Amino acid sequence: SVNPDLASERQTASFSVEKLTALLDGGTEQTRIRRAVVEAIESDPVFSRENQYFQTQNERYEAAVRKAVHLQKKMHEMGWTENGPEYKYIYRALSGDVAFLLHRVFMRSISVLGSDKQIAKWIPLATQHKLIGSYAQTELGHGTYLQGLETTAVFDTATQEFILNTPKISAMKWWPGDMGRSATHTVVFAQLYIHGKCYGIHPFIVQIRSLQDHSLCPGITAGDIGPKMNFEHIDNGYLLLKNVRIPRENMLSKFCEVRPDGTYVRQGSQKINYFTMTSVRISLISDEVLTPLMKACTIAIRYSAVRRQSKLKPGEQEAKILDYQTQQEKLLPQVAAAYAFHFINDYLQELFNRGYGEIQRKNFDMLPELHALSSGFKAVITQHCTAGVEICLRACGGHGYSLLSGLPSLYTKIIASCIYEGENTILLLQTARFLIKCFMAANAGQPVPPSVTYLAAVKHGNCPAKSKLDFLSPDIYTEAYQHVAVRLTSSTAAKLQDLIQSGVKKYDAWNQCTVQLVQAAKAHCHYIAVKNFAETVEKLETKAGIQKIMKHLCDLFALHGIFSNTGAFLHDGYISAVQMDMVTASYLDLLAVIRKDAVPLVDAFDFTDKSLNSALGSYDGQVYQRLYEWAQKSPTNQMSPAYERYLKPLLHNTLSKL
Amino acid sequence: SVNPDLASERQTASFSVEKLTALLDGGTEQTRIRRAVVEAIESDPVFSRENQYFQTQNERYEAAVRKAVHLQKKMHEMGWTENGPEYKYIYRALSGDVAFLLHRVFMRSISVLGSDKQIAKWIPLATQHKLIGSYAQTELGHGTYLQGLETTAVFDTATQEFILNTPKISAMKWWPGDMGRSATHTVVFAQLYIHGKCYGIHPFIVQIRSLQDHSLCPGITAGDIGPKMNFEHIDNGYLLLKNVRIPRENMLSKFCEVRPDGTYVRQGSQKINYFTMTSVRISLISDEVLTPLMKACTIAIRYSAVRRQSKLKPGEQEAKILDYQTQQEKLLPQVAAAYAFHFINDYLQELFNRGYGEIQRKNFDMLPELHALSSGFKAVITQHCTAGVEICLRACGGHGYSLLSGLPSLYTKIIASCIYEGENTILLLQTARFLIKCFMAANAGQPVPPSVTYLAAVKHGNCPAKSKLDFLSPDIYTEAYQHVAVRLTSSTAAKLQDLIQSGVKKYDAWNQCTVQLVQAAKAHCHYIAVKNFAETVEKLETKAGIQKIMKHLCDLFALHGIFSNTGAFLHDGYISAVQMDMVTASYLDLLAVIRKDAVPLVDAFDFTDKSLNSALGSYDGQVYQRLYEWAQKSPTNQMSPAYERYLKPLLHNTLSKL
Repeated sequence: SVNPDLASERQTASFSVEKLTALLDGGTEQTRIRRAVVEAIESDPVFSRENQYFQTQNERYEAAVRKAVHLQKKMHEMGWTENGPEYKYIYRALSGDVAFLLHRVFMRSISVLGSDKQIAKWIPLATQHKLIGSYAQTELGHGTYLQGLETTAVFDTATQEFILNTPKISAMKWWPGDMGRSATHTVVFAQLYIHGKCYGIHPFIVQIRSLQDHSLCPGITAGDIGPKMNFEHIDNGYLLLKNVRIPRENMLSKFCEVRPDGTYVRQGSQKINYFTMTSVRISLISDEVLTPLMKACTIAIRYSAVRRQSKLKPGEQEAKILDYQTQQEKLLPQVAAAYAFHFINDYLQELFNRGYGEIQRKNFDMLPELHALSSGFKAVITQHCTAGVEICLRACGGHGYSLLSGLPSLYTKIIASCIYEGENTILLLQTARFLIKCFMAANAGQPVPPSVTYLAAVKHGNCPAKSKLDFLSPDIYTEAYQHVAVRLTSSTAAKLQDLIQSGVKKYDAWNQCTVQLVQAAKAHCHYIAVKNFAETVEKLETKAGIQKIMKHLCDLFALHGIFSNTGAFLHDGYISAVQMDMVTASYLDLLAVIRKDAVPLVDAFDFTDKSLNSALGSYDGQVYQRLYEWAQKSPTNQMSPAYERYLKPLLHNTLSKL
Repeated sequence: SVNPDLASERQTASFSVEKLTALLDGGTEQTRIRRAVVEAIESDPVFSRENQYFQTQNERYEAAVRKAVHLQKKMHEMGWTENGPEYKYIYRALSGDVAFLLHRVFMRSISVLGSDKQIAKWIPLATQHKLIGSYAQTELGHGTYLQGLETTAVFDTATQEFILNTPKISAMKWWPGDMGRSATHTVVFAQLYIHGKCYGIHPFIVQIRSLQDHSLCPGITAGDIGPKMNFEHIDNGYLLLKNVRIPRENMLSKFCEVRPDGTYVRQGSQKINYFTMTSVRISLISDEVLTPLMKACTIAIRYSAVRRQSKLKPGEQEAKILDYQTQQEKLLPQVAAAYAFHFINDYLQELFNRGYGEIQRKNFDMLPELHALSSGFKAVITQHCTAGVEICLRACGGHGYSLLSGLPSLYTKIIASCIYEGENTILLLQTARFLIKCFMAANAGQPVPPSVTYLAAVKHGNCPAKSKLDFLSPDIYTEAYQHVAVRLTSSTAAKLQDLIQSGVKKYDAWNQCTVQLVQAAKAHCHYIAVKNFAETVEKLETKAGIQKIMKHLCDLFALHGIFSNTGAFLHDGYISAVQMDMVTASYLDLLAVIRKDAVPLVDAFDFTDKSLNSALGSYDGQVYQRLYEWAQKSPTNQMSPAYERYLKPLLHNTLSKL
């Protein structure tokens, strides 16, 4: 039975939840396929996540391996293939709680970086799981800055082998997933040396464990890096290499080859490599970042509709906490952001597909823009969504702090996305470098990519809004965002120029501008996100109330951004103080409007109870019952030896006799 | 041997680290006592925390109980007493990793709320550990709003007993520390009923477990609430009461008594109760909030001085990440905040002591101000420090994400402080209520407490700064903060008035202003914090470079607040756009200045390696060696059954035979 406080929220939905779900999925057929996958996975007890909050790191690892192995069977049973329409829903249905994810990265790197011969040799072995692959790039001393990697691969012409070494402790490979305990092979990135000359970073296939008994191969030291904030199910590993010899054929050689005599040959364009990073950054947004935020919103909004605390109106029953303006102001902007970023993800996917098509026609022109947008949005979205999950957690008070709420795990996992696949600050500075370059070019009358043409077309004048209702006009707020993005880019470009002209070295000038460059990059992405949301809403069907509620969310997303960052808009008077008060009024009004649809808006994300794995977020809202029943199953409710050992002697005053 | 990159940072300190440590401690004698306690605790292997990142919740609980019991012995051995000068350093030396903290709360509530007779009976029992106490207030369905608690205590005149019940699942006690597995007794807060009439919330001593064999008493259901984001060492518990009978004498009756015939007698003033909450909120700031931030800063700054990544200057060695402006902008404001809040903690302590003196003279006039300041600062400091720890964690990249860095545990623990002892938003609204009341009073010419007299003295005119150097004048920025606090309070008061005058009900109008009221309360606290920092610096001795570096930090704290919140200062033009650019310039300049003293500034916090318990933060900066050695000890480096069970059949293609 559904908690009546939650049921009542659903009766007044202003739109069709089912239609919104289909919109998010990209069509009703997609929704059907997704639900079938979820149903198949969730009805199989091997994939259960119910005990995960009680498990140790070792238990989590073992469960993830069991699931990965079982998944092979399941896919066969269900007739799912890697190229089938179901495939992309499997990972989401498992909530990522499965091993051998790096095995796929191992295969992809061979496909992308390997020669045809290498692909023909290794991919079938990997596909049939005759080996388990990993991907060893990051070192103890080096992450984002790849050129600094210290592992070496020296070519020995005499034996036609590469000799691999991690010469210093900082060169030890550190973090690769699946490598700590599972992998038999890995792709090692190392500085290639031939006849004493360094040719930079190259990838090498290295066997690290015996295929017979899983013992470490000669010269290999490897193990697990120990406890982390989350990812207990993954055996992130370390790897030391001491004079490990591999055949010449093991250097992945689509782009570079070492001939038997030691001649180094570069072939083809390596630009495609950037494209791989771009692809990874875009693909992680949906599964690793948006899904957790959507789950956190679902949990926090449902809980806020059943949790009653304190009185809003004297003499009445205690109020739902969702009725407090402060609670709405915490949660509803997160819901709006989840939708905004869902649509920007569509935009990036579309751009990526277009870029991919161009590249296949050997046209690399779109790469810089694609790199800048994927870097910037990876940073902005991971940062925004991490903050959003934290807000959801804290908005659930003490119960949000229990692992059984599901929120702590969502948080401790999503925060990693700010670091992996490029640390956010570094990525934003790459976007900023692109912006500055394009700004200069545009102002010199040169052509620039579509997403930055606005940098050239600086409009003067101020925001024309005359009433708070004017701020519900997408033209008004989109232009305000554009104005800020241009202002921050141009003022930072000017500062940079001034510093250089005053004699500061270029690299020093750049460093002195980085705090402001980061702001400019964020403003650029924020502008694109708002513009894209507004354009998406414009194109939606007006039936079933979908366009109307999406318009409200778009307005909220835009006004929340202004309200939380008033200084950027007030700085040069583009928005005046009086207008800012209108923004505030419109923003607060919107909260009350959207609050009515809060539960239907998160219902549309269509998470099952099993996928939320949360005592607070279940569809029926029976929060307290669930918390109590679940807690009773905790291993901490078994008898503890602490009583006989410590408590009894203390209470019986026999401690001294121990 | 100290990492040379770290050693060089210490050689150029502009001030005496030892003198700054003494300033933080409140004198060299205090430093000496603190170090002696730390030395005694850390040299005792029972108190070791080295394995804690590897332990399960059960193991953490058992270790905490063992430590609590051992601490009794240790105190006896060392001659430490609860009233001695060493006592306050013990908890910090243990990093809070010890059981029976609620036993002290149990004792304090009896001391404060019990009659002389009750104190005489229970305190000796508790002191001698003939029982283990807890404190059962929070329920599944009720936290901060105490009036809503649903547990009942019905007086039965026939038997002279109270009959206690948790009538609904939401009435179940939930969260009390030490109650899940350890406590034999607890103070239960329940609605008192006599002859069918409710007299509100009262405290009752209830035995929950047998003193003989620790079995649950009749009518009691109790256990552990299961896994949480942190606090694995504490057995937070649940408690169901079913017709539990306790004698009349077990209602704590300093302020209210139930006579044998059921007559309810109220005696004395309960105002002192508010004072207890105030005391708890102030006392948690130092141990639970400032210490974690200071530890996080120490870890992140030391790591940033030894981590080298990417090139700042072409052709040179990779740069220390502390040399990047963006890294400085993340970390140095956190160091400044740690000092700012240390000094505001002194201010609150002093105010509290003064208030305590007044109350003993039966003068309760200071209570509202004390309540408003302790509530507001509890919220502002916990929020700021939680965000600060998160920034430190993320600033250490992947290594910050390892539990072995110490940072994840600091974060998952400190975030709870935003929720317990009063949820932050609710506390800020209490501060805001006080501000609005005082603002009205001040404008009606009535006297108001000292901390809010500024609300009456609104100065018109704008910020007089003419250059970026002017923004290094405490008068300039303190006045700017004051201006903003007054503006936010007065504009929200005006909005509230307008709404009420336009016919909106008072409670509704209040709700519609809460987002802005929270802003006003924060601005008030921020202003007091800046003013107090500036006044503290003014009084410091000018010797040994202490005043100079503290002045820099005070400037940084103030300018960081403006830089991060420009809209508040730009809104009515108090600070102009041109002046804001000066703020930015001064702020960024300061980062480069303070960066030179970054390591000495965190060294002054004087944490030992054992207390940091961090592979990244050790005094010698041997980060990589420590990470590697520690990881090897992880239980995840033992043989896993996953190989025989799953990996081997998979690799040997014998899965189907399983």
